[in-house]
Amino acid sequence: MANLKGHILPGSFFILFGLWWSVKYSIKHISRTSKKNGHVQWNFKQVEVIEGAVKVGFTLIGILAEQFVPDGPHLYLYSGQPRSWVKLMNWQHSTMYLFFLISGAADIVTYSSTLMPVGLDRFMLGIALFVEGFLFQYHTSHRPMLDQHIHSMLLMAIFAGVASSFVQVFVHDNLILDLFAVSLALLQGTWFWQIGFVLYPPWGGPEWDLNDHSNTMFITMCFCWHYALAILITAMNYFLVHCYFKNYKRSNRQIGIGLSLRKQKNAHDPLLNESDEE
Amino acid sequence: MANLKGHILPGSFFILFGLWWSVKYSIKHISRTSKKNGHVQWNFKQVEVIEGAVKVGFTLIGILAEQFVPDGPHLYLYSGQPRSWVKLMNWQHSTMYLFFLISGAADIVTYSSTLMPVGLDRFMLGIALFVEGFLFQYHTSHRPMLDQHIHSMLLMAIFAGVASSFVQVFVHDNLILDLFAVSLALLQGTWFWQIGFVLYPPWGGPEWDLNDHSNTMFITMCFCWHYALAILITAMNYFLVHCYFKNYKRSNRQIGIGLSLRKQKNAHDPLLNESDEE
Amino acid sequence: MANLKGHILPGSFFILFGLWWSVKYSIKHISRTSKKNGHVQWNFKQVEVIEGAVKVGFTLIGILAEQFVPDGPHLYLYSGQPRSWVKLMNWQHSTMYLFFLISGAADIVTYSSTLMPVGLDRFMLGIALFVEGFLFQYHTSHRPMLDQHIHSMLLMAIFAGVASSFVQVFVHDNLILDLFAVSLALLQGTWFWQIGFVLYPPWGGPEWDLNDHSNTMFITMCFCWHYALAILITAMNYFLVHCYFKNYKRSNRQIGIGLSLRKQKNAHDPLLNESDEE
Amino acid sequence: MANLKGHILPGSFFILFGLWWSVKYSIKHISRTSKKNGHVQWNFKQVEVIEGAVKVGFTLIGILAEQFVPDGPHLYLYSGQPRSWVKLMNWQHSTMYLFFLISGAADIVTYSSTLMPVGLDRFMLGIALFVEGFLFQYHTSHRPMLDQHIHSMLLMAIFAGVASSFVQVFVHDNLILDLFAVSLALLQGTWFWQIGFVLYPPWGGPEWDLNDHSNTMFITMCFCWHYALAILITAMNYFLVHCYFKNYKRSNRQIGIGLSLRKQKNAHDPLLNESDEE
Repeated sequence: MANLKGHILPGSFFILFGLWWSVKYSIKHISRTSKKNGHVQWNFKQVEVIEGAVKVGFTLIGILAEQFVPDGPHLYLYSGQPRSWVKLMNWQHSTMYLFFLISGAADIVTYSSTLMPVGLDRFMLGIALFVEGFLFQYHTSHRPMLDQHIHSMLLMAIFAGVASSFVQVFVHDNLILDLFAVSLALLQGTWFWQIGFVLYPPWGGPEWDLNDHSNTMFITMCFCWHYALAILITAMNYFLVHCYFKNYKRSNRQIGIGLSLRKQKNAHDPLLNESDEE
Repeated sequence: MANLKGHILPGSFFILFGLWWSVKYSIKHISRTSKKNGHVQWNFKQVEVIEGAVKVGFTLIGILAEQFVPDGPHLYLYSGQPRSWVKLMNWQHSTMYLFFLISGAADIVTYSSTLMPVGLDRFMLGIALFVEGFLFQYHTSHRPMLDQHIHSMLLMAIFAGVASSFVQVFVHDNLILDLFAVSLALLQGTWFWQIGFVLYPPWGGPEWDLNDHSNTMFITMCFCWHYALAILITAMNYFLVHCYFKNYKRSNRQIGIGLSLRKQKNAHDPLLNESDEE
Repeated sequence: MANLKGHILPGSFFILFGLWWSVKYSIKHISRTSKKNGHVQWNFKQVEVIEGAVKVGFTLIGILAEQFVPDGPHLYLYSGQPRSWVKLMNWQHSTMYLFFLISGAADIVTYSSTLMPVGLDRFMLGIALFVEGFLFQYHTSHRPMLDQHIHSMLLMAIFAGVASSFVQVFVHDNLILDLFAVSLALLQGTWFWQIGFVLYPPWGGPEWDLNDHSNTMFITMCFCWHYALAILITAMNYFLVHCYFKNYKRSNRQIGIGLSLRKQKNAHDPLLNESDEE
Repeated sequence: MANLKGHILPGSFFILFGLWWSVKYSIKHISRTSKKNGHVQWNFKQVEVIEGAVKVGFTLIGILAEQFVPDGPHLYLYSGQPRSWVKLMNWQHSTMYLFFLISGAADIVTYSSTLMPVGLDRFMLGIALFVEGFLFQYHTSHRPMLDQHIHSMLLMAIFAGVASSFVQVFVHDNLILDLFAVSLALLQGTWFWQIGFVLYPPWGGPEWDLNDHSNTMFITMCFCWHYALAILITAMNYFLVHCYFKNYKRSNRQIGIGLSLRKQKNAHDPLLNESDEE
């Protein structure tokens, strides 16, 4: 997928998940704080299971697409005489999707049963991000300076995500850590877009000189701007959710956020069991 | 042991221990969870001591084999005029075995007395894995690209094991951490096999081109597949143990797992003391 | 700002903040210890908000100065035919200031409302320091040996600051950690001065031979001396604050430190709420 | 001090301190465990203060010796026309001693007053070890392969010591961590000896070929043997102290270990205050 679309697509997924997580974690934290003050509770277990199912669905489509596009490997791993590998790039992308699929499955298992403790979902997300970064690392050797540089920034966003996920395995419900993970997902998403626009400029724009030192300097700085933007979006969403809840509390009327956010009614609520386990 | 057998053998040991640990940690966790619900308890101290003794036995055999095979060093470190080192490879393998022997001894000391706190066994396993990785690191310089690359993957599995062991010194009884360590043992085992099959293809198969870039790319991806397999095996074993215990609870009859898993009968049981200490 | 003034200025800011923090954390810790013994309490919330506002003010001035000095970019990012980047150095400095501005804003939000938990201020300071170090890292490639070496020492001070800030997100009110952060701020400040005096010797002194190995060796050692000095200053300030409070306790009279340190009067004091949250 | 004596001397100091610490931490842990069972307590505060004073004394002698030996710098930093640095090697060693002196002073402050919390002593030891490693790192570039390699092993022992010291700042009274620090001190000591004997073989022995690959392989393995030895010595000392206390408890008679180990008599004992603070 060495083209603009091949960078826009994964970038959009990360941005979408980043936006959704910024809302989810904000609601989680605010409803947790309200709990102390004796207010309503939300049930997130079903939401998490649905999120896991969506991840499984998307990645399954991704794997099938990578395998069965016209110029895909069609599940052949090697062929020819002398034998050579078939479309390793597509196989690598399939492998990345596979681990995000496992991560989605872990979400479902963690939140739909008491089989595994909370934290497994974060651990598997960390593993999936690690595999993504690990495979990218051997992607860009022997390419021009700027190409390597711009991908090394991506690796930083990915491995920072790995680190934050692994810390989350042990530290639950830390708002700062959760919002950090959110901002890294947004950063990774917008940076995928940036890579696409730099390496495959659309609208017939002028090509970037991939060996110019000042371009490298600009890209380094640009990465910081992307992160400032990611922080801004995360902060905005948190603030909007906060205001919404404040208004809701004042008017004290029921809301229907849709999905399966329901008021907590009794002591057998799974969320309570969850908190007991922690 | 630069041949197929020399990679199959250590690989098999790691796979065996990985499988055994996946069962052990699953039983441990499930019996711990049952405890809260007022069910039976298992005594793992004797099992751990036996495990330590088995490790000491295996490694002792390993050291003796490395020293006294026909082309071994027979405990000579240097000889000849001018003096030169005798069979450094065998000495290095003996050294690795020595540290796993110390790890086994630490298991015995930790679980057969109250001399040392729990955690020493994990610490010494971490040291043993570190020494293994440390000695491997200087093994493969000046070799072809693919040979170095495939061994660097092994180092990743080893040092991830070191990290998880050191965290386990401080964090006891964390299921995710324990199963992570299990999956890394399985990964190391199957990857030893993979190295053997790549570098010394059996059945007169075609040799791998050790300087082909696409081979390197495939091996990188293959390492991820091995880890997906390790996760699958760990999850399967955990699930099987879970089902077994569920059935057992339902029928409420005594089971004899063999070994020395015995019902916990009184408050003076060492396992209780152990949990008190933590 | 590749001149003496361009290194003296940021250095002075870090020294100023380091000195201020050494006083602030000393008072915080000593009043915390006194609390146990049933003595007076100080309210630091307003002080922290003022500190944040000062940071926002300074960095805003910094950004404007970098943009609108006579040879600055005046907010133009690229120009000319063929297009080229305008004054990337100034843009990079503006970016650094921007993140310290965000850090100042985070201070204000953290301490003036209950919107975000304590720790956000340290986290954002860590991010700001990381961005500073990240941009510096690509600053000095292709320069003479000593220039690179002296900047790599600066990076060590910066990244040690990043690490200590991130640990502070999880570990609050640890005196050793707080004073470590203080000493790193002082180190960074005095080292900025050292860089200035080495690369742009004032008073027409002899130039340093930037490729002489013994100069590199001296600079390495000199960095350690700077840190010894930073430890000394931190220890001195802590000791002076300690003595001041001891005298104060003995005479048992009210003091007016100025700023907004006020005696804690009632249970609704925000500082109490803060400690409850932790 | 590029001779045999210059490596034997610091090595001996680390071995001495390692042996002493192995006894100190063993007594500390065993008396802590006995406390729970209602037995005697020892007062370690005075011992720690004396240890700090000894460190200050030794390092002061070290600094003076490095400065005022016949071919030392006699406190001159630069001289000559054109100006050049005077005896940088001696200045570097003085700097290392200076930080161990600060560490000794921190020991005294930590244990003789309540000014600073426990943990400062470990933190400053970590800083001192870091400075030692930091200065060594730029010591051996441009030297033969084996010389660099054997010093890089030393750096591993030093930086592992830094890491364990920094963890000890947060984790007090963890026996495994304490004994790990002990074993690293012993390792550093014996490895200093090994470096001396390899680079400056005494008794007119044959010189080592510093560019022979098999020598490098042997030294790597030899480092592991040194660590096995360090583990053995640590375990032996712990076991001997354990046996001594067991006998003591059985006979229930007073012992006079000398130094200032005294029975804890009353609630105002500083050791109690210390445990309260933690």
